[in-house]
Amino acid sequence: MVSAYQTLKTFFLQIAHLEHLSAMASWDEAVMMPAGGGEARGAALATLERLKHERMAQKKWEDLLHQANEESLSSEWDRANLKWMEKSYWMACGGPGSLIEKAKQASIRCEQAWRVMRAENNWQEFYPLLQTSLQYQIEIAEIRAELFKLSPYDVMLDSYLPGVNQAFLNPLFAELKKTLPSFIQTIVTHQSKQVIVEPKGPFPIEAQREISLELMKTMGFDFNHGRLDVSHHPFCGGVPQDVRLTTRYSTDLLLSALMGTCHETGHALYEQQLPANWLNQPVGHSLGMAVHESQSLLMEMDVCRSLEFLRFLSPKLNHSFGPQSAFEPHNLFYFCTRVRPSLIRVEADEVTYPLHVILRYELEQQLVSGRLRVKELPEAWDHHMHTLLGIRTQDDNKNGVMQDVHWPAGIFGYFPAYTVGRLIAAQLFSSLQKAEPHVLQHIEKGDFTALLAWLQEHVHSKGSLLSMDELLIQATGETLSPRFFIEHIHQRYKA
Amino acid sequence: MVSAYQTLKTFFLQIAHLEHLSAMASWDEAVMMPAGGGEARGAALATLERLKHERMAQKKWEDLLHQANEESLSSEWDRANLKWMEKSYWMACGGPGSLIEKAKQASIRCEQAWRVMRAENNWQEFYPLLQTSLQYQIEIAEIRAELFKLSPYDVMLDSYLPGVNQAFLNPLFAELKKTLPSFIQTIVTHQSKQVIVEPKGPFPIEAQREISLELMKTMGFDFNHGRLDVSHHPFCGGVPQDVRLTTRYSTDLLLSALMGTCHETGHALYEQQLPANWLNQPVGHSLGMAVHESQSLLMEMDVCRSLEFLRFLSPKLNHSFGPQSAFEPHNLFYFCTRVRPSLIRVEADEVTYPLHVILRYELEQQLVSGRLRVKELPEAWDHHMHTLLGIRTQDDNKNGVMQDVHWPAGIFGYFPAYTVGRLIAAQLFSSLQKAEPHVLQHIEKGDFTALLAWLQEHVHSKGSLLSMDELLIQATGETLSPRFFIEHIHQRYKA
Repeated sequence: MVSAYQTLKTFFLQIAHLEHLSAMASWDEAVMMPAGGGEARGAALATLERLKHERMAQKKWEDLLHQANEESLSSEWDRANLKWMEKSYWMACGGPGSLIEKAKQASIRCEQAWRVMRAENNWQEFYPLLQTSLQYQIEIAEIRAELFKLSPYDVMLDSYLPGVNQAFLNPLFAELKKTLPSFIQTIVTHQSKQVIVEPKGPFPIEAQREISLELMKTMGFDFNHGRLDVSHHPFCGGVPQDVRLTTRYSTDLLLSALMGTCHETGHALYEQQLPANWLNQPVGHSLGMAVHESQSLLMEMDVCRSLEFLRFLSPKLNHSFGPQSAFEPHNLFYFCTRVRPSLIRVEADEVTYPLHVILRYELEQQLVSGRLRVKELPEAWDHHMHTLLGIRTQDDNKNGVMQDVHWPAGIFGYFPAYTVGRLIAAQLFSSLQKAEPHVLQHIEKGDFTALLAWLQEHVHSKGSLLSMDELLIQATGETLSPRFFIEHIHQRYKA
Repeated sequence: MVSAYQTLKTFFLQIAHLEHLSAMASWDEAVMMPAGGGEARGAALATLERLKHERMAQKKWEDLLHQANEESLSSEWDRANLKWMEKSYWMACGGPGSLIEKAKQASIRCEQAWRVMRAENNWQEFYPLLQTSLQYQIEIAEIRAELFKLSPYDVMLDSYLPGVNQAFLNPLFAELKKTLPSFIQTIVTHQSKQVIVEPKGPFPIEAQREISLELMKTMGFDFNHGRLDVSHHPFCGGVPQDVRLTTRYSTDLLLSALMGTCHETGHALYEQQLPANWLNQPVGHSLGMAVHESQSLLMEMDVCRSLEFLRFLSPKLNHSFGPQSAFEPHNLFYFCTRVRPSLIRVEADEVTYPLHVILRYELEQQLVSGRLRVKELPEAWDHHMHTLLGIRTQDDNKNGVMQDVHWPAGIFGYFPAYTVGRLIAAQLFSSLQKAEPHVLQHIEKGDFTALLAWLQEHVHSKGSLLSMDELLIQATGETLSPRFFIEHIHQRYKA
C-alpha cells in the first residue's frame, strides 16, 4: 500500500510541474511576449493559479497530512518536507480559488500597465490598478491571518521570508536606521576627496553581453541548465533545472549592468546547486527570499565589488572595450563602492540601500493596516525619502513610488528580504573568510571553486531542510546579527 | 440559472487557457530551452496534458452536453461550438489520463533525442524510442477507434484533418500517384534547357532576419500579436493572440529560408484572423490541419513563388545583399519553381512534394496496422523513395526516415494534411483569382490587402463554423477536387 506521505509526494510533484509552467510563462511574459499577447497570458496564468490552488485546498490533504504525521518518517529530509507540505496546504486554504485567480489577474493587469505607465510617469491612471491589486492581496492575507493567528502584514512577510515577522524586523531595522544616516554622512565627506574617473561609453551591447556570459561561466553558472536574456527589470526566474536569468544593458552604464548580472548569478547558483534529489518537493526549494537575496548580495557586494574581483575584471574590460584609465582596479573599486543618497533602489549603494528598504517596509505596514491609502503614496514616499536620505521625489513618481516591479506585480512584504539578505550575506561571508582565508585571492585569479563549494555545503545543498536560524547557527555559529554588516561597512568605507 | 451550454463554455475557456500554457512551453522548448532543461520540461508538459485530459474526461460533461443539446441554441456559432465540444469530450474519453501522460512523456523524450541523433544519423539508438512512442499512440487510437467506430489510423487522421479518412484520401492520392511521375519527367526534361544562376552567398543572417521581418509585415503579420524566432525545424506555434513563428537561416541558402518564412506566415495569418469573439472556444479554432496547410501553401506556392511576387522581392534582395544577376525576377522564378526529385520533403518542390506525403501515408498505414515494424522503416523508406521518386536513401537515415519532426513528436496521421492542403489551396486560389482578377498585380506592388480580405472572409473568419466540404462549397462552389492543382501544374510548368 502507498503511504500517505508517498501520496502527498506524488501530489507535490504535480504541483512542482504546474509551477514550472507558471515560471516559464511568467519569464516569457517579461522577456519575449509582444504586448498584444498580454491579456490572454494574464487570463491563462490566472487559470493555472486557480487550478493549482483548488487542487491544493482540498480537505483530503488535511487527512493525509494527519496520517503522514503518524507514519514516523525516518529521514530528516522527509520530516522537513512534510512540514513544508503542511504549510503549503494551510497557505492554500487562505481564500477560495476564485479570489486567488482574481488577485492574480489584477496583479498581471497592474504589472502590464506599469510597464507602459512608469515610462510615462502616469501615476493618475496607474494607482487605481494598484489599489485593486493591493485590496485582493490584503483580502487573502486577512483570511490567512485568521488561520495562522498572525497579523495580515506578518502573513505577507512570512510568505516570502518564512519565520520572519515585524517583531523580528523592527529592532534590526531600528538599529540600521540609527546607525546608517551618520555613517553615510561620514562616508560621503570622506569620498568627496577621491578622484574617480568615470568609464566612458558607448559600450556596445554585444560586447557587454559577451563579457556577461564569460563572467557567469567563470562564476560557475551552468549554461546547460539556464540562459541569459534581457528584460525591463533584471530577475532570476525559471526552475532549478533551467534557470532564466535576465539583465538589461545601457550603452552608457557598463558597470551597473555587469554588477546586475553578478547579482542575479548569485541567485542562479543557489537554484542550480539546490539538492538534486529534492528539486520537485517543497523541502528542495530555496529557503525563502531573504536567504535567496543573501546569495545574490554576497556575490555582488562581498565578492564582485571587492578590489580583488575588480583586479580580475580590469584586464577583461580593457580587452573588450579598449583600454581606459577608468578600468584601473582602484578606480573601479572607488566607482563600485561610491556612496551617495539617490532615488532608485536598484542603483543604490550598499550603505544607503537598507534605508530604501526601510522606507518601503514602513509604507507597506501603513498600507496594509489601512493607515495610508494608495492614492497618498507619492506624498508619503517623498516625505520618507526626505527623512531617511535627505532627498525628494515630489512628482517624479517614475523614480519614486513607481520605480519597482514588486507592488505592480502584487508582491507586498518582499522588500525586507533584501536587507535581511544583506545581513545574512555579511555574516556568512565573515565565516567563509575564516574557513577559507584566501578566498578573495582565488577570486582575483578567476577561481570561484572554494567560494562555490563553501556556499554549496553550507547553504545551497540544504534546500529548505533547516530554518533560517538553524542554517545560520550551523554555518556561522550564531543567529542573525547586524554586527557583521556594520563591521563590513566600517572596514570597506573606513567609516 | 446558468445554462448547461454556458457551464460548458466556461469550462472550455479554462481548457483554452491550459492550451495556451502548453503552446508557450512547447514553443520555448523548441526555441529557447537549454538542453539540460529537457527532462523537467517533458515531465511538466506531461502533467499538464494529464490534468487537461482528466478535467475533460469527466462523466458530468456527458450529462451537460446532453442537456445543452436540449437547450436549442439559436446561433449557428453556438450550435457548431457545441458540436466541437462533444467531439473534444469523446476524444478525451479515449484512454485514461495516465496513458495520455505516458504517451506525451514518451513523445517528448523521443523528440528531444531526435534533435541530437538525427544529426548523428543514429537510427539504432533512436528507433526504440520511436517504437515506444508509436505504441502509445496506437494504444490511444485503438481506444478511440472503439468509441467512434473507425479504424485506428482513421482516428489518427481525423484528429488532424476532421472528417477525413482513408476512403477519402485513397482515390485522391491514387490520382496523384498516377499523374505526377510522368509530369515530373516531362518537367525535368523541359527545365534542363533553362539556364539558372544560383544566388551566391554568404547571406548574412542579420540581413536575412531583417528582410524576413519586412516581408512578414508586408504580408500583414501583426507584430503586436506575434514574434519571429529561430528553431531547428520551422513552425508556427503559440496562440492566436500571440503567434510564435519560427524559421531557420543558412548563410548559403537564402531563398529556402525566405520561402519558409512566407509559408509559416500563411499559417500565422490564419491564426491572427480567426474570429476574435470565439478565440477561446472550440469553434474559434482553425478548421484542422489540412485547411491550415492550405493557408501556408497558398501563400508560399501560389503567391510567393509567383513571378509577380518575385518581381516585388527582386529589388529588395539587391538592396539587402548587393545586386546579383541571380536576383533577376525570371531567374528567381526559375529558381523557385525548379522541379527535381530529392530526399528532403521540406525542401521539395510542389510537384514532387505530394509523392513525399504519399510515401509517409503508406508507411503510416502499415505501421499502425502492424504490417510494418519501426525497425524495418529505413528499408521500407528506401524502397518507396525508389518506386515513387526514383532515388534512394539507403543508410542515409538523417535524410530519410529521421528527417521530419512529426513522428519523433508523436504525430502520426498528419502528413496527408500537406497534400490535401495543397489541393485546397489551389482550389481556393482559383476562386480568389476569379473574384479578384488583379490580385497578383497587387502583390507585385507589395499590396496584400485584397488577398488577405478574401482569405479572411472565406476562410479565416469562419473558424470551425463549417465543415471542410461546406467551407469549400461556399468559397469555391464545389467540394475538394484535385483538378485545380493539376491545372496549376500544367499552367506553371507547361507540362
